[in-house]
Amino acid sequence: MRAAYYEGNQSIRVGECVPVEPGAGQVQVRVSFCGICGTDLHLFHGAMAHRLRLPHVLGHEMAGTITAVGGGVSGWKPGDRVTVRPLDPCGKCPACAAGHSHICQNLKFIGIDVPGALQELWTVPSHTLHRLPDNLTFRQGALVEPIAVACHDVRLSGLASGEYAVVIGGGPIGALVALVARTRGARVVVAEVNPFRIQLARELGLEVVNPKETDLVALVNEQTGGAGADVVFEVSGSAAGAETMTKLPRTRGRIVVVAIFAEPPKVDLFRFFWRELKLCGARVYEPQDFEDAIRLAAAGELPLEKLITSVVPLEGMIDGMRQMERGGEVMKVLVSCAE
Amino acid sequence: MRAAYYEGNQSIRVGECVPVEPGAGQVQVRVSFCGICGTDLHLFHGAMAHRLRLPHVLGHEMAGTITAVGGGVSGWKPGDRVTVRPLDPCGKCPACAAGHSHICQNLKFIGIDVPGALQELWTVPSHTLHRLPDNLTFRQGALVEPIAVACHDVRLSGLASGEYAVVIGGGPIGALVALVARTRGARVVVAEVNPFRIQLARELGLEVVNPKETDLVALVNEQTGGAGADVVFEVSGSAAGAETMTKLPRTRGRIVVVAIFAEPPKVDLFRFFWRELKLCGARVYEPQDFEDAIRLAAAGELPLEKLITSVVPLEGMIDGMRQMERGGEVMKVLVSCAE
Repeated sequence: MRAAYYEGNQSIRVGECVPVEPGAGQVQVRVSFCGICGTDLHLFHGAMAHRLRLPHVLGHEMAGTITAVGGGVSGWKPGDRVTVRPLDPCGKCPACAAGHSHICQNLKFIGIDVPGALQELWTVPSHTLHRLPDNLTFRQGALVEPIAVACHDVRLSGLASGEYAVVIGGGPIGALVALVARTRGARVVVAEVNPFRIQLARELGLEVVNPKETDLVALVNEQTGGAGADVVFEVSGSAAGAETMTKLPRTRGRIVVVAIFAEPPKVDLFRFFWRELKLCGARVYEPQDFEDAIRLAAAGELPLEKLITSVVPLEGMIDGMRQMERGGEVMKVLVSCAE
Repeated sequence: MRAAYYEGNQSIRVGECVPVEPGAGQVQVRVSFCGICGTDLHLFHGAMAHRLRLPHVLGHEMAGTITAVGGGVSGWKPGDRVTVRPLDPCGKCPACAAGHSHICQNLKFIGIDVPGALQELWTVPSHTLHRLPDNLTFRQGALVEPIAVACHDVRLSGLASGEYAVVIGGGPIGALVALVARTRGARVVVAEVNPFRIQLARELGLEVVNPKETDLVALVNEQTGGAGADVVFEVSGSAAGAETMTKLPRTRGRIVVVAIFAEPPKVDLFRFFWRELKLCGARVYEPQDFEDAIRLAAAGELPLEKLITSVVPLEGMIDGMRQMERGGEVMKVLVSCAE
């Protein structure tokens, strides 16, 4: 079988690989499709190099079929259609003890700290599995992981029906946050500057504002009767986003930090005081977020096919990376791993 | 009767003043004591000058006795011992409509936007009154307002019995936050660098750490079994405080921003993401916080007399300002307004 090996220095080689037999508590999965995440691109660019043992198999947004089951695994059998929640917590640290095992203080992220899904046959712990319903294609199933991120973000925001939300950043996660927020009955405005992403978000039926052309704060105040937004999702990771996020919420409005800020930006803590704003960080997902994501995807409530801008074969993975690197006309790139 | 007039340019004049007869919905109060707040010092230094109509009577931390009652006021009579919650909301804005009238978008803060308590007879809306029990002295009653700030901060933090809290900044508000947090059954550590404040906080029975001498993050991790603090109160308003506040909390720990940050500091939003931290701003108080503060003060649960480092007459108000300006051996300065 084949795997795509990241060899460092922006080099990827597709080569033969011996499948790992599933041990106790593990299953082996034939990977149909695997999405390329922004994090994969960061790793490709050299980020978090200390966490990778080269050559490394990337990938953690996948859907596929169980091919073999190890000892002590119950409830799963070959042929089951699944996706993987790629988190392997230690179960012993204070975060795990507090019930926050998804952000375990010794978390192994499967696809970064251990080999990922960009191979034909992938062996993972069975506790990571979620069942895909028959009406969900593998293409769509490969989007469950980023949808689960969005479900987690929206859940932690406490967004309620009838509320007004602003999503700063209309990339794949931002678009999914907006789409999931809309299914909760919220009015959602997306702020994005990239013309292709603006157009795509509009094709998804979203209300999009280019903050370089429109005064976003004035618009939100106008649309909310001078109150401000109930919820703001910061998904841009930019200094401008960090500056705007505090200007938009109503008194006691909520901000969810979804983006990864490589550098601490300046944040208007006075505004937090003045309006008693709330902020929370949101990272990855919990099991219920995967179940929510699968339910939403299977119910056809999300225009998933429009988010997939290209599908490349395993051998073309470097092309997929380059498409994402160029930005522009790209949203979600899938890699076809095994037929 | 006399009032202390702030005339701008760090000048205060004590002069004669015609008492304001209480109109409909108002009462007139003889002010026994009025504390000088850090905000008063900021105003004295020229901050928020656009909000003051000079000459201006400052002061909003007081206790006194009703001397006259205007039309339509029920439940209050001359002789009642009271303190004033110095907020006058508009009742019409989106914040008021949402039940957040204490942070009304058009809030008049009594003592800044309208004349304050540093006079013998003060006329205020009756909706601002809270009754002082007989066993609470006027000296102590003048501390109810800052105690109410602390009660609000602690309430918004959701602090529970058995939790671990860090208070960054051991000035008057920080010390009160720590004292109130302790009454909730929390373990509380105060971080302070000023030697006098360290000593005073220790005399109040608080656990105090000088972060210039002790590695606060290491200490908190050690004392919490590697978890981190449940709650962090940022009361210093310093860049160092803004940097430290994100290093201390456990996963999903809470940060309350109490301090006023004149400039947006750098804030480690990555840490919010990584540990799913929560932050909220806390401003002034709601009626229940005043009732909580009065109950705590009257129950003798707070060592209030130790917080009062000097009492000056109305004519000595400028001395009180200078004491606070110098910092060092000062905590709460009271002004004796009327006997």
